[in-house]
Amino acid sequence: MGALSLRLPSLTSLSSAAAAVPRYQFCRRLLLPLRPLSAANFSVQSSIVEKEVATPPPEVERSSSPKPKIQQEKDRVITPRSQDFNAWYLDIIANAELADYGPVRGTMVIRPYGYAIWEAIQDYLNVKFKETGHSNMYFPQLIPYSFIEKEASHVEGFSPELALVTIGGGKELEEKLVVRPTSETIVNHMFTQWIHSYRDLPLMINQWVNVTRWEMRTKPFVRTLEFLWQEGHTAHATPEEAEKEALQMIDMYTKFAFEQAAIPVIPGRKSKVETFAGAAKTYTIEAMMGDRKALQAGTSHNLGQNFSRAFGTQFTDENGQRQHVWQTSWAISTRFVGGIIMTHGDDAGLMLPPNLAPIQVIVVPIWKKADESSGVLDAASTVKETLQAAGIRVKVDDSEQRTPGWKFNFWEMKGVPLRIEIGPRDVSSGSVVVSRRDIPGKQGKVFGISMESSTLVAYVKGKLDEVQSALLEKATSFRDSNIVDVCSYNELKEAIAQGKWARGPWSASDKEELKVKEETGATIRCFPFEQPQGTKTCLMTGNPADEVAIFAKSY
Amino acid sequence: MGALSLRLPSLTSLSSAAAAVPRYQFCRRLLLPLRPLSAANFSVQSSIVEKEVATPPPEVERSSSPKPKIQQEKDRVITPRSQDFNAWYLDIIANAELADYGPVRGTMVIRPYGYAIWEAIQDYLNVKFKETGHSNMYFPQLIPYSFIEKEASHVEGFSPELALVTIGGGKELEEKLVVRPTSETIVNHMFTQWIHSYRDLPLMINQWVNVTRWEMRTKPFVRTLEFLWQEGHTAHATPEEAEKEALQMIDMYTKFAFEQAAIPVIPGRKSKVETFAGAAKTYTIEAMMGDRKALQAGTSHNLGQNFSRAFGTQFTDENGQRQHVWQTSWAISTRFVGGIIMTHGDDAGLMLPPNLAPIQVIVVPIWKKADESSGVLDAASTVKETLQAAGIRVKVDDSEQRTPGWKFNFWEMKGVPLRIEIGPRDVSSGSVVVSRRDIPGKQGKVFGISMESSTLVAYVKGKLDEVQSALLEKATSFRDSNIVDVCSYNELKEAIAQGKWARGPWSASDKEELKVKEETGATIRCFPFEQPQGTKTCLMTGNPADEVAIFAKSY
Repeated sequence: MGALSLRLPSLTSLSSAAAAVPRYQFCRRLLLPLRPLSAANFSVQSSIVEKEVATPPPEVERSSSPKPKIQQEKDRVITPRSQDFNAWYLDIIANAELADYGPVRGTMVIRPYGYAIWEAIQDYLNVKFKETGHSNMYFPQLIPYSFIEKEASHVEGFSPELALVTIGGGKELEEKLVVRPTSETIVNHMFTQWIHSYRDLPLMINQWVNVTRWEMRTKPFVRTLEFLWQEGHTAHATPEEAEKEALQMIDMYTKFAFEQAAIPVIPGRKSKVETFAGAAKTYTIEAMMGDRKALQAGTSHNLGQNFSRAFGTQFTDENGQRQHVWQTSWAISTRFVGGIIMTHGDDAGLMLPPNLAPIQVIVVPIWKKADESSGVLDAASTVKETLQAAGIRVKVDDSEQRTPGWKFNFWEMKGVPLRIEIGPRDVSSGSVVVSRRDIPGKQGKVFGISMESSTLVAYVKGKLDEVQSALLEKATSFRDSNIVDVCSYNELKEAIAQGKWARGPWSASDKEELKVKEETGATIRCFPFEQPQGTKTCLMTGNPADEVAIFAKSY
Repeated sequence: MGALSLRLPSLTSLSSAAAAVPRYQFCRRLLLPLRPLSAANFSVQSSIVEKEVATPPPEVERSSSPKPKIQQEKDRVITPRSQDFNAWYLDIIANAELADYGPVRGTMVIRPYGYAIWEAIQDYLNVKFKETGHSNMYFPQLIPYSFIEKEASHVEGFSPELALVTIGGGKELEEKLVVRPTSETIVNHMFTQWIHSYRDLPLMINQWVNVTRWEMRTKPFVRTLEFLWQEGHTAHATPEEAEKEALQMIDMYTKFAFEQAAIPVIPGRKSKVETFAGAAKTYTIEAMMGDRKALQAGTSHNLGQNFSRAFGTQFTDENGQRQHVWQTSWAISTRFVGGIIMTHGDDAGLMLPPNLAPIQVIVVPIWKKADESSGVLDAASTVKETLQAAGIRVKVDDSEQRTPGWKFNFWEMKGVPLRIEIGPRDVSSGSVVVSRRDIPGKQGKVFGISMESSTLVAYVKGKLDEVQSALLEKATSFRDSNIVDVCSYNELKEAIAQGKWARGPWSASDKEELKVKEETGATIRCFPFEQPQGTKTCLMTGNPADEVAIFAKSY
């Protein structure tokens, strides 16, 4: 993956409020917002309060028998995306063999092709975590129930979702054990034993583990009873250090999303209502899916001293004073794989960003007569070795049971970024045909690329970079054309009713935030780091506002 | 790690019964065995039935407060190994910060230094698994209780050890859920849905996960309520293929143990009594620890059709016939880290094989006067960069709070294979001092190694290889001097009473095998692949025997 360097504009501006955003009067009445409402003549009367609540995804079946929603492998039929986004999503997961339902309601089996995407995510982030001074380790997943109760808002947030072990080794346990929904409590229990003085700080660790949350409405990758994630946990001597760490990690996730997953997430701060149970502040990256619903794709929490006070995690500072540590935690999960599917996929199936694609190039040898096959297969194999040696993930589909046309469709459905076709005429001319997954038909096809090693490698690398950039560009323009700047609650409702994201100044109360949710189905996804300059007026109350918030329906 | 190539004799002979073992009459009465009993005049009367059962390791504490067995970080005192092996083991784990106790009895927190050893194990095996055609994936950890009951001997083996989730999302569940103790059942449930025809075979997967077994007697790494492992699962069209796969994987584990961990394991087949619950055959690698107890360090099972019959995992063969698949499963766990500690460690602490050491070289800069420090620190930093660029895992300990002597002891205790010392005089002469962890004092110390990049890198790589080989040699000669060839039950009892392993011909019944266990505390560790030629007579019954078995007390 390291071989693919992607040229992107610097992302530093993303996490800086002082970024060069055009200065304009934001939502002062009588002034037009810079980006006009593109659907001003939309038929829904904006004065009517809409009760359009996010459609619940269907429950994963309770029994293991017939799976009505996930198509069987044999019939590779994908529901058109525009027709039924949810059915399309489940069809892709089934047909591309990314995942399957587990026998227990809401659980998911991650199949090799889906798991390979997760491994690519791990490979990238794991290196970044270590480069920034974090060490991997492992905490037990069974947590005494009493731990969860120690931090008041934490227990409130998590107790409805807990899976409890009550029997061990044939005996009823004295204390129920929680199957880890997240590890702040057990981490603090251990940190309290390891941290003595300022010399033990900062303590910065991470673990790649499974977590269990008893979710009622599940959907493969997006929300499952058990999922895989990494959870980072750090302890610091000062609030400034903790804040810096929390921001560093959300920035790392942002860069990862842009550069690796080609997902133009919007990083920002959660509202108080949406803040993680137990955190002082939650930072998030919010991604717009193909159906324009938001996906919270990663979070980083500044925990303040909430857990250190609950667990007595103290250190002796340089002046000999005992102080509670300042902490952070941050996570990205297998949900991100769902985000990749729902950002880039189309009616033909999955579309994977080259940087994370398990297979970047599929080589399809084509022959009709038996005497042509050996030349074609030899050439395919040489091309494979050439690309592999250059660090490109490549596979040859030389199966004899399927036609080239079937293979083209199959590997397009699997989202492989580039296809190389080699027929007898290509062998004679020493060249190949290269097709891009993201540009359908002839437009994405280039003939006569020399098989000569250095030419081919440079060409393929260049094309992979192009696809990577094109996916990001496409997703960015889709995102930007679906965010509406709003100045009033009516405009907000109109935008949400159109399925768009609404961005507008907000300084109203938690109660009013919850009213928006109840009436529109939309929540504050974040107060984006990138804020317009100028004075702002709260869209709900008309009071002065410091920041704009983004509202959207979400997964 | 790839940079360190270790020159070892070919290991192919290890898994081949036809290996060039000297042909001799094994245990024909009146003939002396080739290797004489080295303790023939041991004081214990061999006719007395001994009731020496393996000393149970102490229970991990129930409460989280004072840990009597694991020393606190501050007092770096390590009980001498010869005085109390178990206390020594626990002291090393505490002082080297490999692990700590979790809050729930029998659970373990794997700390960064211990986890890094596990990561090195993962990095090696993960590549090998993929090279041999296995794909990683993930199965849910919650398994319906009814699944466990489907395979008769499997439920018998595992039901006493299960952790059960009975409450989810605040409600009593209709069916209890098992927290994965191993995944054969859920794997087969899914395989049944994925496998249709011979074209779907072989199906070869692996997962790196946590598993939970409600063990009563726990010991960090060696036996914990929850541990980490990889579990491979494969399905094949023929019994021959499954057998080949099971042997291939135990062979891979054997090579790993020898070449990476420098542990001269003995690979072989388990007796029927010791076979995995649900397997047709279990292959194992058995390692001799420093206290001469055996550690089962990895297993590979030929499952036959036991699970495919229980779960109806069938395929249509080339003739259109429905058949049950033939399967294997195989695993190595974090227990292996315990094996490394107990194989190589000494009174000074941990001793890590270079191939798996998280830090292969520790650089200790030494200065007295303030004006010496910058030259020494610069040189240390240059040396670090030179070695790092060559792929060597190196760290500089430049802390000012500790003396060089303290640092020497500390990094020896942490088991770092090589130490480089750099003082002002070394800086002037452009050379360094290199000390080996495995050779104490002056004998392991070489002065005047040039700092010049190519010289230093070559020297350090060579030394790391030497240490790696020396650890294996030492462990091998320890192992061989503690295996006794026995011809009778009395000789077996004598050997076991001396704390050694007994190797002798065996064709007796399961009942007699259990009698040996009851009377001596020893079990059959394996029928080793490497068998002496010639006719053999069962040490217990005097009947003809096909094979020798190895008996030992074990963890």
